[in-house]
Amino acid sequence: MDFKIVYNEFLESVEKRIKEYIFEKEPKNLYEPISYIMSSGGKRIRPILTMIACGVVSEKPYMALNAGVALEILHNFTLVHDDIMDDSPMRRNRQTVHVKWSPAIAILTGDAMIGLAYRLLPSDVHHKRTEIILQTFTNEIIEVCEGQVLDMDFNSRKEVSLDEYYKMIDKKTAKLLEACVVIGANLGNASTFEVIALRKIAHNVGIAFQIQDDLLDLTADVQKLGKRIGGDIIEGKKTYFVIKAKELATEPDDIALLSKFYDENGLDESYVPKMVSLFEKLNLFNIANNEINNFFDNAYSQFEYLKVNQYTEMLLWLLNSIQNRKF
Amino acid sequence: MDFKIVYNEFLESVEKRIKEYIFEKEPKNLYEPISYIMSSGGKRIRPILTMIACGVVSEKPYMALNAGVALEILHNFTLVHDDIMDDSPMRRNRQTVHVKWSPAIAILTGDAMIGLAYRLLPSDVHHKRTEIILQTFTNEIIEVCEGQVLDMDFNSRKEVSLDEYYKMIDKKTAKLLEACVVIGANLGNASTFEVIALRKIAHNVGIAFQIQDDLLDLTADVQKLGKRIGGDIIEGKKTYFVIKAKELATEPDDIALLSKFYDENGLDESYVPKMVSLFEKLNLFNIANNEINNFFDNAYSQFEYLKVNQYTEMLLWLLNSIQNRKF
Repeated sequence: MDFKIVYNEFLESVEKRIKEYIFEKEPKNLYEPISYIMSSGGKRIRPILTMIACGVVSEKPYMALNAGVALEILHNFTLVHDDIMDDSPMRRNRQTVHVKWSPAIAILTGDAMIGLAYRLLPSDVHHKRTEIILQTFTNEIIEVCEGQVLDMDFNSRKEVSLDEYYKMIDKKTAKLLEACVVIGANLGNASTFEVIALRKIAHNVGIAFQIQDDLLDLTADVQKLGKRIGGDIIEGKKTYFVIKAKELATEPDDIALLSKFYDENGLDESYVPKMVSLFEKLNLFNIANNEINNFFDNAYSQFEYLKVNQYTEMLLWLLNSIQNRKF
Repeated sequence: MDFKIVYNEFLESVEKRIKEYIFEKEPKNLYEPISYIMSSGGKRIRPILTMIACGVVSEKPYMALNAGVALEILHNFTLVHDDIMDDSPMRRNRQTVHVKWSPAIAILTGDAMIGLAYRLLPSDVHHKRTEIILQTFTNEIIEVCEGQVLDMDFNSRKEVSLDEYYKMIDKKTAKLLEACVVIGANLGNASTFEVIALRKIAHNVGIAFQIQDDLLDLTADVQKLGKRIGGDIIEGKKTYFVIKAKELATEPDDIALLSKFYDENGLDESYVPKMVSLFEKLNLFNIANNEINNFFDNAYSQFEYLKVNQYTEMLLWLLNSIQNRKF
């Protein structure tokens, strides 16, 4: 099986389902921004992961198409609201919703998307897993808000531990991937062991994914990322790199640079090369890469609990692609 | 039965359930604003209406306590987000969440409240009405966003018809009351006829309620309302009064005043008495009161389809109290 072809088939179904579901509804001032954010492409990892998880346990990935799209809508709701809070002007090389329309429209766009996501979730009460699916989805909404608040708390703090960082990215990023596989697997009537293994895989990939994001902010191709390089340093974000650097730096100049970053809640763009040099000096690019690979290894170790079929192989292939992503 | 006593018993249960459910959770920066908005009192009409609807059909109102609280949380989510969009400084004599904390925290507060509301809705799939209950709740979230967008559209428009006004307040206000009675009634295993009658009652009360709000903005006791008098005129809101006045005004001075209101999107506070005089001259206070009473009469006409019991009598009493409300 050529997994890239299957991925693209899934992707096409997801895009088609999104279009059918959302485009050309009234009132225009609500559904145009929703269509806009939902049509801005992306890799659609979340719905496809949902479908693959369902495929792993049942070999019927399309049973999870609607739920996958619901999770993609949920993900995009968080992007729209996060962009207002961070006042980000651009996302995926396009204007953000609150800039193109207004903050008020962006708030409503996100709110309505939560409703639209729930409407697409299976509500067939004859499916005996509906209860766990709804609970997982609802928990995710609450977790992602808690994660965003923790992230915002970090902005005003002079000290953030690595444990706190992991707790934040767990809520903000990993829990959604967990929700994808738990919901996909339950739609396929997975066994408890399969749900646990898939959840662990998603958790580890989610954590690794966020550290990768911190890494790519420093190293990615600007065009592909659709954001400026070192944006996290400029914005004062407490990333894996900054937290680790504060733990490891010993020389007065280095400590002074980090203190300046913490005290002033970010640095001018001209300081980005200095920070990157410091991260290099402290070997943080290797340390981060090792950490990312460790999380992927944890994920790979769970595969022994899964049935061997083409979707399990596809999941392995997807993990490999994510592990090697460059944007 | 002294309905005021029963109302207060219901109210106490609602307040207790809210406290148990929300207070003192972590992270504080999320749950403190949620507790703040949820503890700001109010008449709790929505949860109590949910309980009464359940009582009407089953005589067991407390079966709908959790769902009622979920609907109250949903209502308060819309208040938090609406206050950001309108940049309202005060609500119920207290600072609004986005002023006391920040717009970012207020956005997250509202988002998390949607999740918290869903978590409290009955998710017991063995209850055969779970599907309709969830659908009703989800539809309401989408409708209220659509209503708010229509309301915002009105701000930038020079012409709003009474039909459009009714469509907007249906989505923004009436549909939530309909959701309360539909969910309450279904939890009590209502017949289809009972659901239809209760929905019509809620719809008519909801529309009347909004026209009352427009009226009270001009006539209420400032302390009790917790807002300034004539605020809608100052903010340029297309209320029942303004729309009706534009329909009925014939004298050049009056038309000029209304045109000024539309062109400048609201008027300075000093113009409030002039507008109120115009409304009086056009007999709008009587016309509005007649309209309100007509909607209540439509609601009362549905009572013949309901069982006669103490909760049906209580519903009648509640409608009377709302019809005669002064704030």
